[in-house]
Amino acid sequence: MESSCPTPLGASDRVLLAHGEGALWSRRLIREVFVRAFGGSEHDPLLDGAVLPPCDRPIVATTDSYVISPLFFPGGDIGSLAVHGTLNDLAVMGADPIGLTSAWILEEGLPLETLRRVVDSMAAAARAAGVRIVAGDTKVVPRGAADGLFINTTGLGRLRPDARLGPERIAPGDRVVVSGTLGDHGIAVLSARSGITFETEILSDSCNLHPLISDLLDSGLEIRFLRDATRGGLAAVLHEITETGSYSIEIEESRLPVSSQVRGACELLGLDPVHIANEGKFVAVVAEADAEAVVNRLRASAFGRDAAIVGSVIATGPARVSVRGRFHVVRELDEPTGAPMPRIC
Amino acid sequence: MESSCPTPLGASDRVLLAHGEGALWSRRLIREVFVRAFGGSEHDPLLDGAVLPPCDRPIVATTDSYVISPLFFPGGDIGSLAVHGTLNDLAVMGADPIGLTSAWILEEGLPLETLRRVVDSMAAAARAAGVRIVAGDTKVVPRGAADGLFINTTGLGRLRPDARLGPERIAPGDRVVVSGTLGDHGIAVLSARSGITFETEILSDSCNLHPLISDLLDSGLEIRFLRDATRGGLAAVLHEITETGSYSIEIEESRLPVSSQVRGACELLGLDPVHIANEGKFVAVVAEADAEAVVNRLRASAFGRDAAIVGSVIATGPARVSVRGRFHVVRELDEPTGAPMPRIC
Repeated sequence: MESSCPTPLGASDRVLLAHGEGALWSRRLIREVFVRAFGGSEHDPLLDGAVLPPCDRPIVATTDSYVISPLFFPGGDIGSLAVHGTLNDLAVMGADPIGLTSAWILEEGLPLETLRRVVDSMAAAARAAGVRIVAGDTKVVPRGAADGLFINTTGLGRLRPDARLGPERIAPGDRVVVSGTLGDHGIAVLSARSGITFETEILSDSCNLHPLISDLLDSGLEIRFLRDATRGGLAAVLHEITETGSYSIEIEESRLPVSSQVRGACELLGLDPVHIANEGKFVAVVAEADAEAVVNRLRASAFGRDAAIVGSVIATGPARVSVRGRFHVVRELDEPTGAPMPRIC
Repeated sequence: MESSCPTPLGASDRVLLAHGEGALWSRRLIREVFVRAFGGSEHDPLLDGAVLPPCDRPIVATTDSYVISPLFFPGGDIGSLAVHGTLNDLAVMGADPIGLTSAWILEEGLPLETLRRVVDSMAAAARAAGVRIVAGDTKVVPRGAADGLFINTTGLGRLRPDARLGPERIAPGDRVVVSGTLGDHGIAVLSARSGITFETEILSDSCNLHPLISDLLDSGLEIRFLRDATRGGLAAVLHEITETGSYSIEIEESRLPVSSQVRGACELLGLDPVHIANEGKFVAVVAEADAEAVVNRLRASAFGRDAAIVGSVIATGPARVSVRGRFHVVRELDEPTGAPMPRIC
């Protein structure tokens, strides 16, 4: 009987299994934490689906789960990261966002205060990007069956008419551009997780790249391929590109933008910035003739101020992906096959 | 160097943290397990997003995470359940499916054989429903940070022109119909989890309700509202409906379709079938004049053969949701506020 049942969010300051039962307490959690933050009315029907307008252009769909540890790190948290990561996946496919869904797996015992902070951060990131969280889901698993909380965000977008992007458009002679410094997110998370501190705090670069990419696509410059350099870093993106084509990529080590703090941290930890995850950087393969103009355009924005041409697509190389180091020695750029950095996103 | 690196799926029969790194081993896992099962080419670019055709009708989006334990249960598994559950969410909103995304959180050490079984089951369920898994994501968390595997599926659908469904369309006099027996899924999962066996094995009712609902909407009968009765069972659906309206709902206990095995199990376990989760049953609120025709139409299908009118919408009642029991005693139908059945979906 509703009148005799304590308000669960008042009676407990932690997530309970009952919050996942799909009944009264679930609805209260959804209303009091999610609907409130995401701007719906508290009296909206709590549909787990949303109805969005028709779309006159191809629809882009992308999905990502976020399992990062710790939940809060210098420069961001799992809530804002989930919004940025999914918006960036849409943006590099050439899409403007239509809406996001968010699905939450919560561990029994998670402090409600932690949940609220993450939900509020997700809501703020979505508001800043001008995109709505249109549908959601909440599950609760018993203590020990998950670690704190995991989030899935799925993004829907409208393909831009001017986006003609794909690995099949890449050809020898094209230039490889990165939109800024490499490795900031991965090192920030490792630092937060391990308790290693550096002289200057290293912040995650987690941000919404849609405005920067939108401006680039508006420019009419010849952009062949875009990809955000997340898990696996720049190296994984370059390997993925070359696996689908019949060309090689050579990058120049001296041209890679890396902050001095990240460079120092990588030396200390025995890591290479090309393997480290970013959450606010993308790789663009662009026509040779437009490469300088692309970099100049990116540098005009705060989120692209360290953009650089870092390499070229070549017809054949000593390896599919190689690095020209100092003293012009060319070596293969391999990918890590161990697991140096779990739970980075 | 690729040539010197062992095939991860050959070298290990378990999920490794390296499978979640976003680099070489991640791509191999995606190719050898997911792309193979979901019918893509092994040489497709492994985009984490998909491009779908434009949609001339409103787009329906729904998201759900699946955390069910155990992963395999009588009548289904987490893979087929994830497809059915999400298709059913689209169907009750009046949408035909366009595509599904699937995002996987895997625990380090999960046997690859288990993963393959679940992925293959998901692929088979999608094929049977004629819907594609259009994009995916895989994360791996260290041993102990998740329990086996969790799946998120997000569904995209096209709103049918004939679907005019919503709690605001419900009015006193309408009838409440359920599409079949209640409680099968929940009891099947509880039985698998606890090791309690019954004389006759109780199977989950997990199935794709889209064909049944599509036929019902084709019929032109006056359907006001549809909802699948999953977590929280029939009771949660009725409470959710009445929370948004200014009417009550009274159901008649003697009309509730419950199999004798589920009834027996519920008596044994002290549970009420109205609170138990289903994964292949929906609740329809329909115009009084069409209620018999709706039930007859449902009964013509194998998935609706036990459909029944179970109650009515009334202007005011002793409680928002009440049950008329045997001997005509009317009592309030409350919702469980504890957590009798965690991880049921």
